[in-house]
Amino acid sequence: MVNPSLNRDATIRTLSNILGLTVSEITLEQSGAFVERFTLPPTRSGSLDDLTFAVKDLIDIAGHTTGCGNPTWLATHPPATVNAICVDQILAAGARCVGKTITDEIAFSLFGENHHYGTPLNPAAPDRVPGGSSSGSASAVACALVDFALGTDTGGSVRVPASNCGIWGLRPSHGFISLAGVMPLAPTYDTVGFFARDLNVLNRVANSLLPIADPAAGPPTVGAIHLIKELFALADSAVQNALTPVVDQLRHTFHGKVRETSLAELCGDVRAANPATWLTIYRVLQGTEMLSCLGAWMESAAPEFGPAPSVGLQFVRSHDRSRVGEAIALRELFCRRLNGALGPHDLLCLPTAPTIAPLKNSKAYDRNSDYYIRTLPVTAVSGVGRLPQLSLPLGQVGTVPIGLSLAAAHGNDLLLLNVAKQFTAPR
Amino acid sequence: MVNPSLNRDATIRTLSNILGLTVSEITLEQSGAFVERFTLPPTRSGSLDDLTFAVKDLIDIAGHTTGCGNPTWLATHPPATVNAICVDQILAAGARCVGKTITDEIAFSLFGENHHYGTPLNPAAPDRVPGGSSSGSASAVACALVDFALGTDTGGSVRVPASNCGIWGLRPSHGFISLAGVMPLAPTYDTVGFFARDLNVLNRVANSLLPIADPAAGPPTVGAIHLIKELFALADSAVQNALTPVVDQLRHTFHGKVRETSLAELCGDVRAANPATWLTIYRVLQGTEMLSCLGAWMESAAPEFGPAPSVGLQFVRSHDRSRVGEAIALRELFCRRLNGALGPHDLLCLPTAPTIAPLKNSKAYDRNSDYYIRTLPVTAVSGVGRLPQLSLPLGQVGTVPIGLSLAAAHGNDLLLLNVAKQFTAPR
Repeated sequence: MVNPSLNRDATIRTLSNILGLTVSEITLEQSGAFVERFTLPPTRSGSLDDLTFAVKDLIDIAGHTTGCGNPTWLATHPPATVNAICVDQILAAGARCVGKTITDEIAFSLFGENHHYGTPLNPAAPDRVPGGSSSGSASAVACALVDFALGTDTGGSVRVPASNCGIWGLRPSHGFISLAGVMPLAPTYDTVGFFARDLNVLNRVANSLLPIADPAAGPPTVGAIHLIKELFALADSAVQNALTPVVDQLRHTFHGKVRETSLAELCGDVRAANPATWLTIYRVLQGTEMLSCLGAWMESAAPEFGPAPSVGLQFVRSHDRSRVGEAIALRELFCRRLNGALGPHDLLCLPTAPTIAPLKNSKAYDRNSDYYIRTLPVTAVSGVGRLPQLSLPLGQVGTVPIGLSLAAAHGNDLLLLNVAKQFTAPR
Repeated sequence: MVNPSLNRDATIRTLSNILGLTVSEITLEQSGAFVERFTLPPTRSGSLDDLTFAVKDLIDIAGHTTGCGNPTWLATHPPATVNAICVDQILAAGARCVGKTITDEIAFSLFGENHHYGTPLNPAAPDRVPGGSSSGSASAVACALVDFALGTDTGGSVRVPASNCGIWGLRPSHGFISLAGVMPLAPTYDTVGFFARDLNVLNRVANSLLPIADPAAGPPTVGAIHLIKELFALADSAVQNALTPVVDQLRHTFHGKVRETSLAELCGDVRAANPATWLTIYRVLQGTEMLSCLGAWMESAAPEFGPAPSVGLQFVRSHDRSRVGEAIALRELFCRRLNGALGPHDLLCLPTAPTIAPLKNSKAYDRNSDYYIRTLPVTAVSGVGRLPQLSLPLGQVGTVPIGLSLAAAHGNDLLLLNVAKQFTAPR
């Protein structure tokens, strides 16, 4: 089932259908999205004047200790003395910060169930998880408690909650939004991303943070839009059915430009057709980087983790670190090939996730669960390619949201956002 | 004065001229390059078999506490539990690690004079500084104590010591060598780089760490080589004179391809012609990122710093953080324009530094000293553009080395290294 009008307010209607509430009636307490509430006024006036935002508790706010979703982290780190760069950028563009939101522990889960701080509400599907690790930021936006929110995305931590909660979520091109003041997890994949209910708001935030427009350049033109066969094939049939009318609409809007393409063709390598290849590249590099970034703290502080990160960490520690070079070699080969194939004009189209949000307490966080084995290859493609990816909240399985994603070559965030605007413009 | 034969062993001859020693006679103690000596055997056999290397003490080695050049840092951090990713890559390629080398405190100087741990020997100019912040790694290579060494380069910390010590130094494209397990200083500029006396060795290390070659692609072809007018103009006349015959040789090797070009032309913006523009972009973003990365530790641990970082930190704290967005906007504009102008075939050519190594104890570390005001705009261009830059040890002012640099578009490290190989091949 898809919302045939591709209306930007689909989420809000879905929400009121389910909860029998208008969005404005969801309280802070019902959302459970925040770990801390405060007000930081804007430092200047600008393109984000009058907007409010929230910040994932993995990103520094001066005077507050960034908790990273874990009480031991909170207790073993000093307060931030300055804001993260991305927060200073947003405040200087006119927006008002209203608090910090729950993250999965050390950003290491796609579920959004924090053992210590709870599970933020997914207002579009209250019996289901919001998705993680940027769970509170997605919830705060979906519950209309803020206009937009900052999250981080290493392996899907913005895209998956955006899909689950039925909101827009951008993972920008790797390396453009500063990570200074953000907990490092896996630096060659880490990005700061953001959520909004409204594409115009998302665009305004993108223009503040990235910034993406060259005043001397014309608007980018759209070439091919490649529907990635292997990633649609990984999706549940209900998800495939839900996304079919959205894709049909995409074909209609960009007639003659939408085609089915294989990852093997784009990468010029048969190994790219196998989801397990992407899973391995992502996991080996993410896991080994994570231990380099956080291993010393975990060893010295001996934090108590909930079951989801504990299971994940066992898995991470099993990697043979002398093999990391092989994962890097394949990652860089696929990254070069993908970016070469996309060039300045082409896009990928893929399901944001292969399934709708799992039910709460499903305990599917084993790293070899069907959920992870199918989701990570889908999210890994943009990670490996350093591509910007936008999740569009345009699909529904029954009343439960599912995102369709577009991705572009590294640095082409503007093309991506322009295509989304063109696609969803009223006709 | 330039070594007219462009001989790769220029450094070694210079050294023996000055010290009256052959390189192999310089002892560990004379070099003062190491903070710690140990042996880590390779984990596999590969393309770096039989080579030895050293690691800047900003990069993790399992079981050792990374000291970052400051005793308080050493005392307030737990030992690393795993190696940094780049170290694991190198060990798996067959090289043997022989120890950790001195860094300037928190990597925040271009001089290489560490108040706590001393000044590593610049064997090519023993009365002058080795350059920093990767001072010990440059010294260890220049003294022939190792075949190559890992450093980091945020604002010149590999390129400047390579120039000062008369060795090869590569700052790779931003974002390709993992920074996991490396102290973050200013993430949108931070890179892991490396030094060697021999270009073949440098190439082997580059192929292990990056990796840069696509087996399906042919060798890259060279288009234009742009001599950057504004940056040559910033150099001392002695440096200009020293580099002239090297540039003449470049014109001879790549006849018809070498031309004088302005940064204003490459960036399509008159502001780019002013070195102060590059200085400001670099400093505002580097300084604000640095406080986001290290401010909380500095506040809570109250480290004792030597005079050079202390003076620098006063300067860093003076930035108005609400202006960081303006620096980012200009940085991204220039980055896009530079990369667009270079494309897949063209290169920049610039002096690595505008001066030879300063004399030791010159106390020129005030951030508004002539040294910093002229050096940072030269090193900032590749930082802002995310460009790979190679310093070639081909110039000499009297007997003191000065590097000539080539830079390429982001991701084109292979082009850069191939051009250097072609340039220095025996004729």
